[in-house]
Parts: sequence; C-alpha cells; structure tokens
Amino acid sequence: MSHPQKTFKDTVFHGKSILSVRRGTIAKTTLHTQLDRLHSTGRYDCFKLKWHPVYDDKSGWPVPPHLFWDSDIGKWIEAACYSLESVYDEVVDTAIQELVGMIRGAQGEDGYLNLHYTVVEPEPSKRWSNLRDMHELYNAGHLIEAALAHHDYYKNDLLLEPMLKYVSYIRKVFGPGAEQRHGYPGHPEIELALLRLYSATGLRDAYDLARYFLEERGNPKGQENKHYYDWEAEQRGDSPWKRPDPYPESRAYWYTQAHQPILEQQSVEGHSVRCVYLLTAVADMIRLDLVRQRSVQGTVQSSSNEQQTALPPLDWESWKTTALRLWDNMVDKKMYLTGGIGAIKQWEGFGIDFFLPQGTDEGGCYAETCASIGVMMLAERLLHLCDDSDPDRRYADVMELCLYNNVMTAMSLDGNAFTYVNQLASSNKDASARSEWFEVSCCPPNLTRLFGSLGGYLWDYGSTGDDAFVNVHLYTTATLTFPVNGRPFSLQQTSNWPWEGTVAFRANLPDSTTATIRLRLPLWCGDEFVLEPRPSNSDVSITKGGYLSLSPAYVAANPTFSLQIGGFKPRYVTPHPYTNQHTLTLARGPIIYCAEDVDNAWETNHFKDTAVSNTSAVTEESRVDESTGEEYIALKTPSWQRLLPSLSRQRSGEEPGFDASEEALGLERELVLVPYYFRANRTGKGQMRVGLPSCRH
Amino acid sequence: MSHPQKTFKDTVFHGKSILSVRRGTIAKTTLHTQLDRLHSTGRYDCFKLKWHPVYDDKSGWPVPPHLFWDSDIGKWIEAACYSLESVYDEVVDTAIQELVGMIRGAQGEDGYLNLHYTVVEPEPSKRWSNLRDMHELYNAGHLIEAALAHHDYYKNDLLLEPMLKYVSYIRKVFGPGAEQRHGYPGHPEIELALLRLYSATGLRDAYDLARYFLEERGNPKGQENKHYYDWEAEQRGDSPWKRPDPYPESRAYWYTQAHQPILEQQSVEGHSVRCVYLLTAVADMIRLDLVRQRSVQGTVQSSSNEQQTALPPLDWESWKTTALRLWDNMVDKKMYLTGGIGAIKQWEGFGIDFFLPQGTDEGGCYAETCASIGVMMLAERLLHLCDDSDPDRRYADVMELCLYNNVMTAMSLDGNAFTYVNQLASSNKDASARSEWFEVSCCPPNLTRLFGSLGGYLWDYGSTGDDAFVNVHLYTTATLTFPVNGRPFSLQQTSNWPWEGTVAFRANLPDSTTATIRLRLPLWCGDEFVLEPRPSNSDVSITKGGYLSLSPAYVAANPTFSLQIGGFKPRYVTPHPYTNQHTLTLARGPIIYCAEDVDNAWETNHFKDTAVSNTSAVTEESRVDESTGEEYIALKTPSWQRLLPSLSRQRSGEEPGFDASEEALGLERELVLVPYYFRANRTGKGQMRVGLPSCRH
Repeated sequence: MSHPQKTFKDTVFHGKSILSVRRGTIAKTTLHTQLDRLHSTGRYDCFKLKWHPVYDDKSGWPVPPHLFWDSDIGKWIEAACYSLESVYDEVVDTAIQELVGMIRGAQGEDGYLNLHYTVVEPEPSKRWSNLRDMHELYNAGHLIEAALAHHDYYKNDLLLEPMLKYVSYIRKVFGPGAEQRHGYPGHPEIELALLRLYSATGLRDAYDLARYFLEERGNPKGQENKHYYDWEAEQRGDSPWKRPDPYPESRAYWYTQAHQPILEQQSVEGHSVRCVYLLTAVADMIRLDLVRQRSVQGTVQSSSNEQQTALPPLDWESWKTTALRLWDNMVDKKMYLTGGIGAIKQWEGFGIDFFLPQGTDEGGCYAETCASIGVMMLAERLLHLCDDSDPDRRYADVMELCLYNNVMTAMSLDGNAFTYVNQLASSNKDASARSEWFEVSCCPPNLTRLFGSLGGYLWDYGSTGDDAFVNVHLYTTATLTFPVNGRPFSLQQTSNWPWEGTVAFRANLPDSTTATIRLRLPLWCGDEFVLEPRPSNSDVSITKGGYLSLSPAYVAANPTFSLQIGGFKPRYVTPHPYTNQHTLTLARGPIIYCAEDVDNAWETNHFKDTAVSNTSAVTEESRVDESTGEEYIALKTPSWQRLLPSLSRQRSGEEPGFDASEEALGLERELVLVPYYFRANRTGKGQMRVGLPSCRH
Repeated sequence: MSHPQKTFKDTVFHGKSILSVRRGTIAKTTLHTQLDRLHSTGRYDCFKLKWHPVYDDKSGWPVPPHLFWDSDIGKWIEAACYSLESVYDEVVDTAIQELVGMIRGAQGEDGYLNLHYTVVEPEPSKRWSNLRDMHELYNAGHLIEAALAHHDYYKNDLLLEPMLKYVSYIRKVFGPGAEQRHGYPGHPEIELALLRLYSATGLRDAYDLARYFLEERGNPKGQENKHYYDWEAEQRGDSPWKRPDPYPESRAYWYTQAHQPILEQQSVEGHSVRCVYLLTAVADMIRLDLVRQRSVQGTVQSSSNEQQTALPPLDWESWKTTALRLWDNMVDKKMYLTGGIGAIKQWEGFGIDFFLPQGTDEGGCYAETCASIGVMMLAERLLHLCDDSDPDRRYADVMELCLYNNVMTAMSLDGNAFTYVNQLASSNKDASARSEWFEVSCCPPNLTRLFGSLGGYLWDYGSTGDDAFVNVHLYTTATLTFPVNGRPFSLQQTSNWPWEGTVAFRANLPDSTTATIRLRLPLWCGDEFVLEPRPSNSDVSITKGGYLSLSPAYVAANPTFSLQIGGFKPRYVTPHPYTNQHTLTLARGPIIYCAEDVDNAWETNHFKDTAVSNTSAVTEESRVDESTGEEYIALKTPSWQRLLPSLSRQRSGEEPGFDASEEALGLERELVLVPYYFRANRTGKGQMRVGLPSCRH
C-alpha cells in the first residue's frame, strides 16, 4: 500500500516553483537550524540518558518540558532521511547515525524506549500510568516513522530493529486480554505509524495494535467497567477534578477524541492535531481492508509485505462512513478559508460548528501548523479510499489549500523561523510572529518532513500489466517516474503554479504501455479549462470526482499536451453566513490573500474597520521579494474606513446597541494585499487580516 | 443612606401597569409557589439540622446540591417581608415566623450559622476551609439581608439579633491580623449585605468587614505571601490542578473577580452575578464615604445609625474611577440588547469584549436572570454616586432596560415558572424554557424580592429644610409620599408605560415647601419630549446627565403637569459591529422585541435565516393575551428568507468558503414580533430570536 512518505522518491522537483524553492531552503538551511536547536536545547544528547537541568522543572503539571523530546528527534530524523534522498549532506548524515546509535543504546532489555520514564521517573510502575497525558505512545509513533524513513534511506535495520522490538513489547501491554491494559494514547500518532509499519514490514503486531487502539478508543466501559482514563486516574489516585489545563471541564475526553467510540462520533472535536492524526490512521485501516478485498478478488496485487488476507475482516463501510462524516463536518463547518483548523487556544482545537473567529480579539483562532499538515495527510489518505478511476477533488482541493496557505505561512522565507499558530487576523497585541523554536516543538520538524516527502502528495499512479494510470492532484514543476511492467514510465509537468494555470505535460511511455491520465480541475476553476491539443469527445471525460480524464488514445496521440486551468484572476470568497463573519477575502487560484500593515502604512487597528466591496475592481501587481528574489502577485482594491456607531456616542456606559442607520463609510484608500503565506516576512507591526468587513459601495 | 429595599415603602403602586400586575401576581401566587417548593425540596425544614437524603449526594465536587439552601430561605424571607408591606398574607406571615425560629435554633454558641458545616461536615476545621467555592459567606449575606427586611416589617430583632452575632463572629475570623484569615468570599454578596447592615444599624464590625473583603480581594500575596485561594487549597491538600468545573483553567481566579485587586481590574470578568454584586458593594462603600464627607461638611444629615465620621478615610476617587470603568466596559462591550450579561455557560459569565453570541449554536448566551437583577442593583447604587442635582440617565436607562426585558422575561405571566438563562435566540434544541424551580435556585426568589422592593427603584428624593427634590428614574403608575420638614409631600405619576410615553404628574406640596422635580429623558427618546403646561425657558433645563429639571417655580405654578416622551414608535437597533452580529432588532420605548414561532408558524430554524431590513415599514398591533387579559403591542414587518450559499453546493466536504456573490434573498413573509419579556408564554416550540440578520431590500 502506498504512502507518500515512500512514493515521494519517484518524483523529482525541478525549476523554481515555490515548492521546489522551499524544499531547497529546508535542505540547505532549515535542517541545520533545527539540528542546532536540538543540540542547544539538550535534545540531541537526551538518549544518552544523563540528567539534564530541565528535568528538574516541575512547574507544569502533568507535562514537563522535555516530554516530547523523543518525538522531536524522531521527526527530525524522518525529515532528514527524506531530504538526503534528494541532496546528500554529510553533517546531516553524521547526525542521524549518531542519534540512531544513542536511541539504540537507550532501549531497555524488555524493549521499552522512552526518555521520561527511563531517566526522570524510572520506577517501572510509572510506565503507562497516564496514557491520557504523558505521550509515551505518541513518542513511540514518531520514532517508528523515523525508523521507516531511516530504513528506506540507509537500507539497514539499525533503527527499525529496536522499534520492532518496542512494538512487540507494547503489543503485549495493550489489548483485550484480562491481563492487558485496555488503553490507547491521549495523543494519536502511533496508530498511523503502526499501519505504515505494517505496510512496510508485514508485522502483524503492528496492525493488531493499531486496530485495537482505534476500536477501543472512547469505550465508556473499557477497563473494569470504566472509561480507561477514569480507571487509570483512579489507579494513580487522582481526583476526577484534577485535570491538565487544556481540559476545560472534568472528563472532557472529547479533547482527545475519546468521549465516545470513534464510530459514534458525529463531529470533529477537541485537539485538532490529535483529531486529524487519528482520522489518518482510520483511513489507512479502511484502505488496508479495501486492499485485502481487492487482493482476494485478484484485482490488485498486494505488496509482498502486506499479508492482508490473514487480517480479520473490518466493518469497513461503517468506518468509511464515519471518516467521511467527520471530514465533511470539519471542512464544511470547522475550517478556515486558509485551510486552518482549530479556533480555540485552550485545547488547541475545534470550537462548535461555524465558530471561526479570525483572531484573538474575536474569540480566538488557533489554526496550528501541525493540524493543517495533518489535514493534508488525511486528505491524501482519503484520496486512496476512492477508486483509482475516480479520485475526488474534494480531498485534493483541501490538501492544496492547506499546503499553499496555512502550512506554507508557517515557515519564514529564509527557512529559519516558524509559526505554531496561524491566525487570520493578527495585531501588534498578538502578532502570530514566527519563532526559531518552541518548547513544544512539533511544528518546525513537521514542516520539514512534509516538504521532504512532498513528491508523494502530487500524484497517485499504478499499473496493471501494460495499463498505467496517473492521477495528478497537485500542479507544479516535477517529473514522476515509475516502472510499468518493468519498464520506466515518466510524466513531467511544468508550470508557473500557483501564479498561472497553464501546466505543460510530457509523457514518456514505454512501447506497448497505455496510460490514462487524470488531471484535477479545482472547484475554484469553475470547470473553466482548456486542453491542448484539443481532444475529441471520446478522448476525454470529466469524472464524477472532478478530474479531467485523458484516455489512453489521447495520451498515445499527444504525449505532449497542456492543460490551462481557469480561476487565475482575483475572486472574493466569504465564509459561511453562520460564522457571523460577513467578511470578504481575496483569493486567486489556490492562494488566499491578506492585508498587512507593511503595504498599508495608514492602518492602525489591524484592518478591523477596513471594508471592501465585492463589486470593486481588483488589480494585480507582479512583485519580487527583495530579500529572496521570490516572485509573487500582489492585489490592489479600494477600501473604505468603516465608521463605528460608537464614535457617534458622546459618552460611554450608555445603553447597549445603536440606531441601525445606514452603513457609514468614511475615507477611501487603496488596499494592497499579499499572499497569506507571505505574511510577516518583512518589517511591520504584525497588523494583518484575511477577512475584511464586507460593505457595499 | 437610602437603599431601595428600605425606601420602597414610600411608594404605592396602583392601576394596571405591568409592574403593578407583576407585583400582584408575585404576592398572590409566586410567594406561595416558592414556599411550596421550599417545603417539597426539604429546604423549609433544613434549619432543624436533621439529616436529609440529599446530603448523601456526593456526585458533584465541591458543591453539593444543598449548599445554597441557607440563601434560598434568606431570599424568600426577604421577598416575603417586602410583599407583606403591601398585602398581608397569613400563610406567608406564619411561614416567616416559623423559619426565623428554626434559623435562631440553628445558630451555634459561638454565633456560627451555616447548614452545611453544621450538619454535613460538622468538624470545626472544615469551616472556612474553602472560601473560594463553599459559599458560607454568600449564605451569610443573604441571611443578613433577610434579617434587615424582617426587622423592618416585624419591628423586632428575632432574626437580626442572631445575624449581628454571626457578623461579629465572622469579623473575628477575617481581617489583617496575624491570627486572622486574609480571605474573602468566592461569591460576593455579604459585602453589600454588610454595608446595608451598617447603614441600618451602625454596626462598625459590618462596615470594617465589608471593607476588608473589598480591599483584600485579589491580593496576590494575601496569606503567607500567596494568593489566598492558593493558600487555602494548600491547607486542604488540594492540587492546584484540582478545580471545580466552572474554572476552565487552574488558578482562573478571574472567575470570582479575584485575579487582581479590584482597583487594578480593567474589565468585568468571570461569573456575572458575582461581578455585579461585588460592584454594588463597591458603589455602596464609595457612597458611604461621600456621605461621610458631606456630613463633615455639614451639607447632608447622615442617618442616625451611620457613624460615618468615625470611618477611616477611603481613596474614594480611585474606587469611583474603578467602578465607573467597569460599568463602562460592561455596558459598552459585554451587555446584550436585552440588558442581559454573560455570554459563557461554563462560568456563567462574561466572554471577551464584544463576544455576544445570541444562543447556543453561536457559542452561547447566558444572560442569567440574577445577573440583570444585579445590574439593576448596581445601576441604582451608581445613581447615588451622582449629585442629587444631576442624576445620570445612563444608569437609569440600563436599569429600565434590564427590568423590562432580561428580568421580566424570567417569570411566566402566571408567576409560576422562571428562567435562569435568557438567550437572545433559542430553539427547540435549547429552548430557554421556564421551570418551577432549580437545583441552584437563586433566580426565582431574587425576582420576588426585586419586585417586592421595586418602589425603591422608581425615584430618589430628599429634602433640606423646606426644599425638596424628586428625581424620577422609572415611569409607571405610582405615588410617592415622604416627609418634608415633618409634613407629607407626595408625587403621583400616572401613565400607560411602557406602551405610551405620556406621564401625568400630580404633586401635593405642603405649604412653604418648594420642590425640584427631575424627569429622566431616556437616550432612546432622542431628546424628543413635550412638557405640559409649556414652561418658560427659565423654568426648566436639561441636566448634564439627561434629566429634565423642573424648577420649584414651575412645580409651584403647575402641581399638575405631564411629560410626553418620544421614541414610542418602532425603531431598529443593532449591536456594535465588533460583535460580528450584523443583526437588526426591533425596539419600542424600553421594550425589546423578538420573533416567536407561535406567531410565525412557517419558521423552522429559529429565524436564523430570516432577514429584515431597516428600511421596511413596521406596523403596530394592539393585542390582549388570552390567558391573562394583559395588553401589549405586537409589531409586524416584512422578512425575507436568507438563501445560504451552502444550498448551492452539490456536495459537502468541499473546500471551505463560498463565492461572495450578491446577497441572495428568497421568499418574503410577514414577520410578527412580540415583546421579549412575553416570550414562551404560549404554546410553541421555543424557536425565538431577538437579533435578525440584516439585509437590504
């Protein structure tokens, strides 16, 4: 079963696309900056199991600052291995090998491998005593993912071997047996890692454990007739009202998506990263079952490592219904125009349906970088639940939206600084500025590993005999090469995406190979496209899921063709009326725009009172960023100062509410907007807004 | 110093005004219904100190169901005593006397008087062990208020005497001394009760204790260099992360307005009832200092019981600045159009500035009945911080807004059912229906005691020698009588308020008395008014605070006069743009309107998509409620179905956001609106909305 973390090697980026430039920056700069941070913070050496002064920090409860260090190292190794596939780097190579050596040395005889419970609380009774909060399984998941990347690059088992041992140990601890713990991780991650591990190695323990975690999650009577987290808290002697700060109320297990069994959940709730990691695993579990069925039916060759037919049957329809129901709820009701998810800072997660304030002064906006990366992972997995002949652009559209907006804004152009939170309106009071590192530093290495494996997100492909297919989800400049019946097939795409919609393709087919190529028509293009050379009616069709399908005959006749996708003019988009936003946002192609004070020096209140009209003309301006030479398109449109009724009040403290007179607009000024990903890369006060009050003028 | 709970006796309501009708209903029905509930729930007998089965209920922590029973009894006694002043009722009289006997019998030798810590947790070490949550001082406050009302009606000390003893005991426990506790109540109430007690009795302990509580509150280093609530939690052995459910995060002491000293607080925060009770006490403390100063200057006679000159000086300017700053923040940024406060259910209190969603599906709306009653108490107290010659209509406007809307909607027309929460948009999913009682039943008796003492809110008055003044804050039909130099002065007002703006006055002045009468011109009347007989220029003036001041000469020449106040036509009001509401609300005079499904049977989504335009004509319809014969005015205006962009989407789960095309409106229908206070008195599904989406048509 394919995973982008494995298939990315079939893709080579070239040219100067933003994606290619970012990948270059990460290889050249970011990996090194992050390695420096690993060193300077103490993470790098932590698996030597010596005491570090930060371990004495007991100021927070229950999570000490070092609790995620295992995963930080895991993610960096993973990202570094992906990067090495493209560009060799001796410093990075050496560091990986040294880190792997230290990890191997840190594993217990029994296979246990965790920094905190080996060094800081080494009493064996402490292990697994707080699955809800203590991230042991989360850390294990990231180390497993690191091991897979390491194995693929180094072609040895130096990291995989201890992780397999660890998984077998964990498998013994958790399960339905009377002597086993009926628990599951507070922060999902290991589930998706285990399913990748199973796909790569066929290790049945990995599959069984992932499936157990997914099926058991949220069981109200999991252990001794109690919710597992209640039971384990009792075991620890903790009062039900003693709870970490992200839990607004006691037993708010929706924070970890454990308030009810997954199959019963009707909406995405709680911590947004946990939620999308969990659903990614769910999608993978379903996919494995689909592969098993097709393999039984003989329609698909399973990879040699997946012994699917031996797996117990899954009620995959219920799981798929659940996954799609939760996807729909998330995208329709809980996602920002930038692809960000999570409105609430306290639990870093979802508010109620349609609660999507743009920034702190409206009630919040979290939109964590990792969460949108998780949406991309989930979208990519859901694409795999579609028939190969009918990929669904819903998932690819959202994947692209996240990539170019909420995800890409999280790294500075120089590759040295990152955001955790990506508000849609920031001000000097809460600027959403980028930092070089965070105490809980999930986001920076998550970006790095995403870009490292990005090739795997561009397209899906495969073959049966001599019949090949490629489903193109994302446009950029890159070449895909994979074997069809033992001979190399390649497809090259060249474009100036995301600025222009024309994508030139060149297919190199081995003799006797036939190829169907399906090209995503983004929703925002409004089915406006031109294919050259012009096809005959029978040569192309638009699939139910919104892809332009080129027949083998068309591809054979036109190995060089180009698709010109419409929608590359500025358009106003608006969130659902139930968000109570009443704002307009400029978009162009997949790019969402924002206004920044750098370009609009007159602004004083982060554009909160800067109204725009969807009947105004918008002009484009090609620009080059001074520091990097990177090109982008800025937009300009008239704006009007919204005059507040409170200004007409002579005194404060008078009755609430105002005469509802006609909308009052003041000074007209030209408003300059830049891509959201570009924000906060120049000087400025951090005054920024994506959604501007809508007015009529 | 005057308090409305004392001065109300000078006012007699007559006629069939809504206020008078409600008072009659309360005397005849509500007091009895509530007495029945006291009996049936076990409250009535609780001071016999026998075990009640509910005391075994340990399901909640830390607050058991019976924790507020002392206060429920206190509030009922207080309300009942007020009502007896107008209408004698033997059942009520007998019950009061029996309750007082039981309370007396429940007091400890040392003066301590509390149900929970006498019966349920009687160990002396438990007393005062959790001021933050356990409401001992809150309960004491309500019993003190009951004692004052009891003393005024019965002219004996049967309840006052044990309360004075209790206060002296409490005074020994709390204070700045090394052996004293440096604590203060989690739920303010006793402070305002103590200041009333001081005004009535001159008991210095009462003043000192109230002032200590107010000055010490929020001290970050109150006890052993720690915040008092941290210190007491440590004493109990409670982890800082063990916290009651209303605390979203640990140490969220803003919930109880104890996050910083009161003088440093910049905005109203936390539990809204606590906040306004606290500020009412602050205003009373300031007022006492003003009285002291004026008494020193010889300009005001202090009441015989207030030994103001002996009080330590207060930095009253800082306190007044603080009180007014917090008032402004509350009214400008945290108050609903109905006079409701508190958006958040979890802590029954304020959200951030301008966070005023209308109902559950927008993120909440609490608007507790008690909170608006508290706003009325605070407004009444702030009026007393004004010079008598320049009352400020801000406070009276808001007082009236609360009274006729958020407060009056809380009781059914028949006087038998009550609301706790008063949303501005309710639906069948969360109907804000009225109940006969609540487990925490603060609101029903709070309404009863407010209406019992309502006469005290109508006007302020006084005299110096033969010179009298009356400042009329609220209009209705009632007569005020008070002595001027030993002879009775009376002022009668007659009106069909709140439906018509004409108020007829008749003043009966003793010979040689001169009187200045000031009449509030509500902000919403837009200074549109007519005084008959027409005055000459020198006879009347409009004060800075917005009152029409009639000179003694005018009053002498025209003992019968009438004021016709404008604004009694429907008007559209709208909340501040920063609320992100974009809604229109119909108002007429002081009445806020809502749409209900009973009148608009076509409605299916609690009017969430029913748009109105402020350019539409609005017609009035006089109606008579079938069940009670009560008259009111309904309004009618066209409305349009708002067509949602999501309806144009063929599939869910597609990218967030929509093309910002022109506002799409569908079917036009006549919308009928009724006064908000009238809601949920007929059949219906609970679909109701105050703020309707604004459209242009």
